[in-house]
Amino acid sequence: MPGIFDHPFLSGLFGDREAATLFEASADIRAMLRFEAALAVAQAKLGLIPAVAASHIATVAETFAPDIAALAAGTARDGVVIPELVRQLREAVGNEHAREVHLGATSQDVIDTSLVLRLKEFCRLLDTRLAGLIAAYEGLDRAFGARPLTGYTRMQAAIPISVSDRIRAWREPLTRHRGRLASLSFPVQFGGAAGTLDRFAEQGPPLRAALAGALGLDDAPQWQSQRDYVAEYGHVFALVSGSLGKFGQDVALMAQVGGEIALAGGGGSSAMPHKQNPVGAEVLVSLARFNAVQASALQHAMVHEQERSGAAWTLEWMILPQMAMAAAASLNRAQDLAGAIRRLGEAAAP
Amino acid sequence: MPGIFDHPFLSGLFGDREAATLFEASADIRAMLRFEAALAVAQAKLGLIPAVAASHIATVAETFAPDIAALAAGTARDGVVIPELVRQLREAVGNEHAREVHLGATSQDVIDTSLVLRLKEFCRLLDTRLAGLIAAYEGLDRAFGARPLTGYTRMQAAIPISVSDRIRAWREPLTRHRGRLASLSFPVQFGGAAGTLDRFAEQGPPLRAALAGALGLDDAPQWQSQRDYVAEYGHVFALVSGSLGKFGQDVALMAQVGGEIALAGGGGSSAMPHKQNPVGAEVLVSLARFNAVQASALQHAMVHEQERSGAAWTLEWMILPQMAMAAAASLNRAQDLAGAIRRLGEAAAP
Amino acid sequence: MPGIFDHPFLSGLFGDREAATLFEASADIRAMLRFEAALAVAQAKLGLIPAVAASHIATVAETFAPDIAALAAGTARDGVVIPELVRQLREAVGNEHAREVHLGATSQDVIDTSLVLRLKEFCRLLDTRLAGLIAAYEGLDRAFGARPLTGYTRMQAAIPISVSDRIRAWREPLTRHRGRLASLSFPVQFGGAAGTLDRFAEQGPPLRAALAGALGLDDAPQWQSQRDYVAEYGHVFALVSGSLGKFGQDVALMAQVGGEIALAGGGGSSAMPHKQNPVGAEVLVSLARFNAVQASALQHAMVHEQERSGAAWTLEWMILPQMAMAAAASLNRAQDLAGAIRRLGEAAAP
Amino acid sequence: MPGIFDHPFLSGLFGDREAATLFEASADIRAMLRFEAALAVAQAKLGLIPAVAASHIATVAETFAPDIAALAAGTARDGVVIPELVRQLREAVGNEHAREVHLGATSQDVIDTSLVLRLKEFCRLLDTRLAGLIAAYEGLDRAFGARPLTGYTRMQAAIPISVSDRIRAWREPLTRHRGRLASLSFPVQFGGAAGTLDRFAEQGPPLRAALAGALGLDDAPQWQSQRDYVAEYGHVFALVSGSLGKFGQDVALMAQVGGEIALAGGGGSSAMPHKQNPVGAEVLVSLARFNAVQASALQHAMVHEQERSGAAWTLEWMILPQMAMAAAASLNRAQDLAGAIRRLGEAAAP
Repeated sequence: MPGIFDHPFLSGLFGDREAATLFEASADIRAMLRFEAALAVAQAKLGLIPAVAASHIATVAETFAPDIAALAAGTARDGVVIPELVRQLREAVGNEHAREVHLGATSQDVIDTSLVLRLKEFCRLLDTRLAGLIAAYEGLDRAFGARPLTGYTRMQAAIPISVSDRIRAWREPLTRHRGRLASLSFPVQFGGAAGTLDRFAEQGPPLRAALAGALGLDDAPQWQSQRDYVAEYGHVFALVSGSLGKFGQDVALMAQVGGEIALAGGGGSSAMPHKQNPVGAEVLVSLARFNAVQASALQHAMVHEQERSGAAWTLEWMILPQMAMAAAASLNRAQDLAGAIRRLGEAAAP
Repeated sequence: MPGIFDHPFLSGLFGDREAATLFEASADIRAMLRFEAALAVAQAKLGLIPAVAASHIATVAETFAPDIAALAAGTARDGVVIPELVRQLREAVGNEHAREVHLGATSQDVIDTSLVLRLKEFCRLLDTRLAGLIAAYEGLDRAFGARPLTGYTRMQAAIPISVSDRIRAWREPLTRHRGRLASLSFPVQFGGAAGTLDRFAEQGPPLRAALAGALGLDDAPQWQSQRDYVAEYGHVFALVSGSLGKFGQDVALMAQVGGEIALAGGGGSSAMPHKQNPVGAEVLVSLARFNAVQASALQHAMVHEQERSGAAWTLEWMILPQMAMAAAASLNRAQDLAGAIRRLGEAAAP
Repeated sequence: MPGIFDHPFLSGLFGDREAATLFEASADIRAMLRFEAALAVAQAKLGLIPAVAASHIATVAETFAPDIAALAAGTARDGVVIPELVRQLREAVGNEHAREVHLGATSQDVIDTSLVLRLKEFCRLLDTRLAGLIAAYEGLDRAFGARPLTGYTRMQAAIPISVSDRIRAWREPLTRHRGRLASLSFPVQFGGAAGTLDRFAEQGPPLRAALAGALGLDDAPQWQSQRDYVAEYGHVFALVSGSLGKFGQDVALMAQVGGEIALAGGGGSSAMPHKQNPVGAEVLVSLARFNAVQASALQHAMVHEQERSGAAWTLEWMILPQMAMAAAASLNRAQDLAGAIRRLGEAAAP
Repeated sequence: MPGIFDHPFLSGLFGDREAATLFEASADIRAMLRFEAALAVAQAKLGLIPAVAASHIATVAETFAPDIAALAAGTARDGVVIPELVRQLREAVGNEHAREVHLGATSQDVIDTSLVLRLKEFCRLLDTRLAGLIAAYEGLDRAFGARPLTGYTRMQAAIPISVSDRIRAWREPLTRHRGRLASLSFPVQFGGAAGTLDRFAEQGPPLRAALAGALGLDDAPQWQSQRDYVAEYGHVFALVSGSLGKFGQDVALMAQVGGEIALAGGGGSSAMPHKQNPVGAEVLVSLARFNAVQASALQHAMVHEQERSGAAWTLEWMILPQMAMAAAASLNRAQDLAGAIRRLGEAAAP
């Protein structure tokens, strides 16, 4: 069954090719292999494995194309893709250096670090889009901000405000979300079998620091059963889509009340071809509520037993990428919607 | 981005090819075309369109292969796939009978009815799997039911029970779920532009009944803004995966405590190759919590404004197929897990 | 901190004195004592305890007023109120028959059965209110049903419908909800320490049947770790408030668009005393979304480990009574709102 | 119906008297009156009302005891308590200065600011408790940290770790939560009828700054329809209870596996008086899942239409105080549980 974000035709509503590239299986595999390469290189720097082994592993990992069907079978068997991926990578590296591959690491190190590597890039994408949407709102403000608008409170006409006032309520949260993105941590995950880096003794922390440095991530003690980082990412993604849900809801209400907005385009109806539906506005509400629901799952995944929870961790895999996609897609839809606004506020300027 | 149920490697955990066939875009399109064909035939029976038109439309619809890229573009524009699908179908039908295609119907009629058609078949699949799992539990009961087991209450050893007692708590809810499936309604959706079948006057109800009959669905007044049917499907799917989550949690705890269960297979670890992880048990917990989260969305979608809500309806599209898949996949995983049980209860029979 | 349903001033919005009487601690205690009395009487009938003991226990239980502060301290210590309640009841019963009190029962038997006893009465209350609201809708239909109304789909004016069409979408789900209430089970819970009625051997099932009969509940095997019954109650409560959320949302939108509805009363504003806010409509939406959120918790509580889960069971206590209250309150608010409607549809009849 | 946090006997599990004082109706009223007093004083400073009026209003507000029953009736009518509270306060202030009470303010200004005032104090309480619990963990670490413990991954024994390693996974998230609390904003809400401070023209911003200063809050533009602040509070509360849910789950599992922990106290059973249930551990899991569910509601409340949403705002009132209480109670329960630990790790030190 296709996911909603790459569904053959619903992707017209939810799709986001640019964001999707970060959550494709291939992007995950590339990032996992990048972890294995960086680990070997960092271990060589600390004299834990020969430099020639590291260099060979890094070279192989860079272009290694695993057997995907075997990865699926391995995942079915092991619950995680890594044992099979490492087995394949070791085979590709060859006997001489096979045992230096993935040395002292565990599945969670690779999978969580791959996620963080991609989320770091993803958050840059979100930030760029937030900036773009803020600019679009500023453009609307310059064009229409001075026009009068009826302020509505509790769904009733209240007092006159300006279009600028309404736009401010759309724009200001986005600026705060940019601040939230900027304050997120992107920590490497590296703990070994049970989180203690037991294979490395006192060389564990410097090795982790070197690994983090090589990957451009924050150095931090392992967090394999401390999932607040993950819940935090999801929270910020939900805030982004939530604020845009407010924008969408406002636009749909403005279109319903009539006279307050003019939109280019808008959806057709199979029964009433003349009708113009505020599709872009509605889908923002759908995406906001979608993420509002999903956010709950990541809070449940905080209840992560002992040194590693298969069940809670797997739940994150089912949820977080979808939340990221919903946030990204909602920014694209909002940018399109802002761009489709031909007029805000009463038809005549004051 | 791939969905979790057809992810290149995570599908090893979550995938379910048999169930997926019902939620592929192609299955949706086939069911939508089946609606259009049945509608034309029913309209011909009531003399609303010429028999020759109906027969031609039905023939074309049966094998019509739409341009999928154009459907995606249409969905992006209209928020629903139907205007573009109908446009293509009319083109394929040809000028003479084009206007008899989709006559008096609206997008929601086609999309909701396609969903119900496929859910009816899906619920039969669930029922078959529930029966299979009940049989597997009965087999385990015959083999091990008389053995002693420590009963645990509040995560503490309480008093001795039998394996049979534990199995009963796994099995009995499944029997109730079969009863729930049997009592679900599968109503046709047919209301036209705003739910009033305005184009058909007093012929509306008999037309709807004929359409329902042709499709093997229950005849019922349109329910386009009454979404309790949809919330009910999702609720039953969540109950199924929830009960199996309890089974999975029990098995994982039995495996942790040790001595209470022997399992064939079980997942490997990249750091500890000797270790046997209860992967099948854990993923049942993940799927249960996944559906527990999603169920909330369908309750929100009950707040469905006026004659049709774009936002609430679209939210259902994002949620319900995933819930169905999670329920189906959890039945498969549970069947595998039950089949992997080599022993339940203390090693020696009493 | 006060709960929202008996908050000193917010109860003006959410309160429901009639429903609350079933969820007061005192009602719970009375039902728990009723269980202990019925248990003793049933045990006497089967010759398990002397008739005189049963009669004495039943007499004492009927009027026993426990020390509430000690119950709170006991709950803090034991996680459940029963050990302390039984200790107090035994003391009140006196030495001679103390050991016949609560014989072979466990905390969960008493707590779950008390809940079901009260839910059975509560569901009768819901049904009565649903019938009342259906009648109110029918009255509105008689008064205004023939008037024209603009049908809105996707938040855009679509085609003319009648007020009757809109009312039908409010009324029909309520009829289905009455059917759902009628098909709910209200099973006694009686399993003893670990669910096996181990103290009673072959007399267990007839004892349970006698107990169920005395309490007016369905006889059913213990379900202490099978929580689909509980999730089902919550689901139906959410459906009720969800359908009323749709009614509230529709009324708020009609009031916003203007001209489609005339309401008596409505809330004032501290800044704009002239303004009339559709308070009753809005709170229906709030209550619907409240229950939509809570429903998820009961699905999570399905993952109920082994013979009894302290954690999952306790979660139910935090959630289900609030969901019941929200459903009941929403019916009262909806009845008030329906009663406040002075006109539906365009001002002039067609 | 009593709330779970002040339930006559369940409060033994969930109650938290200290935290509750901030969410009592009386605390809310005091904070609302503090707003009205500070507003008058700030307005006098800017010459907007006579100093004598401000001084009189502040004096009256300080000790004013409103008629609570009338507040409930007012809330039922208006959807918010403020119109009636202001009416009563004006009456108490007397005719001469009545019109200077609440001048240019709206209900939301008072209600949201009262919330933020109390949340600021509440977050200090949380921080103190987090520090206390961190200290308790450090004490456990000093006492038992060097002992061996079996590390469990995916619910299976993995490799030996130390007690210190396990404690670190409990402690480190709490330190991050303290950082999160420290970075929260506590902004005044002041916007007037529709958020534009229309009554004050260019004196609006300095008036708001003076008001914020007098109340010890951050000065910020009105955020009445921008609810990310509220979702953020709830998120942090859920993270706190979530991390403690992990602690509780770990303790319950250690108690189940046996030999890894010795606890003083623990709950009794009505059926098995000898049994010691890990009540304190279980309730931490319940509170974590409770908040994980509730967090979703605050994300939904982000979809806040136009200048003020009655429905979404009211939903916050139903949710946020309960989340705060659950976080506070979970810290108390965790502190008790940490204090009840008599031994962690294998019985004999290495």
